[in-house]
Amino acid sequence: MNQQSYPSYLLENAVTHLAKLPGVGRKSALRLALHLLRQDEREVQDFAQSVLLLRQEVHYCRVCRNIADGDICQICSDPGRDQSRVCVVETIKEVMLIEQTGQYKGLYHVLGGVISPMDGIHPGDLEIESLVERVAAGGVQEVVLALSATMEGDTTAYYIAKKLAQTGVSLTTIARGISVGDELQYADELTLGKSILNRIPYQL
Amino acid sequence: MNQQSYPSYLLENAVTHLAKLPGVGRKSALRLALHLLRQDEREVQDFAQSVLLLRQEVHYCRVCRNIADGDICQICSDPGRDQSRVCVVETIKEVMLIEQTGQYKGLYHVLGGVISPMDGIHPGDLEIESLVERVAAGGVQEVVLALSATMEGDTTAYYIAKKLAQTGVSLTTIARGISVGDELQYADELTLGKSILNRIPYQL
Repeated sequence: MNQQSYPSYLLENAVTHLAKLPGVGRKSALRLALHLLRQDEREVQDFAQSVLLLRQEVHYCRVCRNIADGDICQICSDPGRDQSRVCVVETIKEVMLIEQTGQYKGLYHVLGGVISPMDGIHPGDLEIESLVERVAAGGVQEVVLALSATMEGDTTAYYIAKKLAQTGVSLTTIARGISVGDELQYADELTLGKSILNRIPYQL
Repeated sequence: MNQQSYPSYLLENAVTHLAKLPGVGRKSALRLALHLLRQDEREVQDFAQSVLLLRQEVHYCRVCRNIADGDICQICSDPGRDQSRVCVVETIKEVMLIEQTGQYKGLYHVLGGVISPMDGIHPGDLEIESLVERVAAGGVQEVVLALSATMEGDTTAYYIAKKLAQTGVSLTTIARGISVGDELQYADELTLGKSILNRIPYQL
């Protein structure tokens, strides 16, 4: 969209900012801006406020770096959770995804990403040191590595495993295998290979 | 996404508001919220501010109802435009699209939609009366109807044509036909029929 074609500076400015959102181009941004123009002023105020408050007021849990409304997140402060297990994830998003499965009752540790020298992300940029300290402080019996099955995820898992080797903590990693519902004929050979290697006893 | 799985009320609130944007579901809204969380606070402030200012400070041109930064929009206040032609469009978006073609040098009149009783949009909800007054005030020689080729667009065009019939203004409508670059075999028969009926002299 040609810059000169905007009939209003305010519109152009809003479109420019909306277009910075991931997956939103200038055309979609214009659509969003025109939508917001049609809403009640009160509604747009609430919208802007909610975004601003999120950025300004949100806290990060002192223990696990998950986002929280206070000093400690809901999960870490829940006495019903198994305090001896810590699941290491990349971002808050994975915490939410794993929570939705309802299959895990331990705690988390949010790294804030994975090691990726190509993107300039080094171990020091992630919450790895705090994980090591947390494990060293005692009380943690198992660290579950739940990282992406990518080169970066594997590198990060390896780095953490080395760091934790002397602590004697039990290290596990989530299973790789055929997705539930997938047909075997469409599985890639790496996944299929892993799923055969890591076969488990069949339960009747 | 289950509501209970949000680790922060602020996050949930921002996601709820972002998910009200057209074409944004709760999953995308979460992605946008987490993206905003990673930005500089200053950046998020500018974002929220730009959206709020757009809604609160924007003006609508007194003449054509296009959006403007002042009382009269850039197009209406441009002495180089042909003041005797008025192109009737549904929204600001169409003004911008037509401006981008560079093929029109007259003025506009933004209706704010099309007549659609099913959606509760009646002639009185649109800027039709102001168009009739504008034409009645004199100086306008041609009204170009540039509305969608839909039933609602056609209904609106017909309604406006009836309203303007006594003013003696010349009424035209944009051509319907095969899109530039389209293969004839894929054209629908209505469009193909119109394009044959409205054939024009071939220019060497």
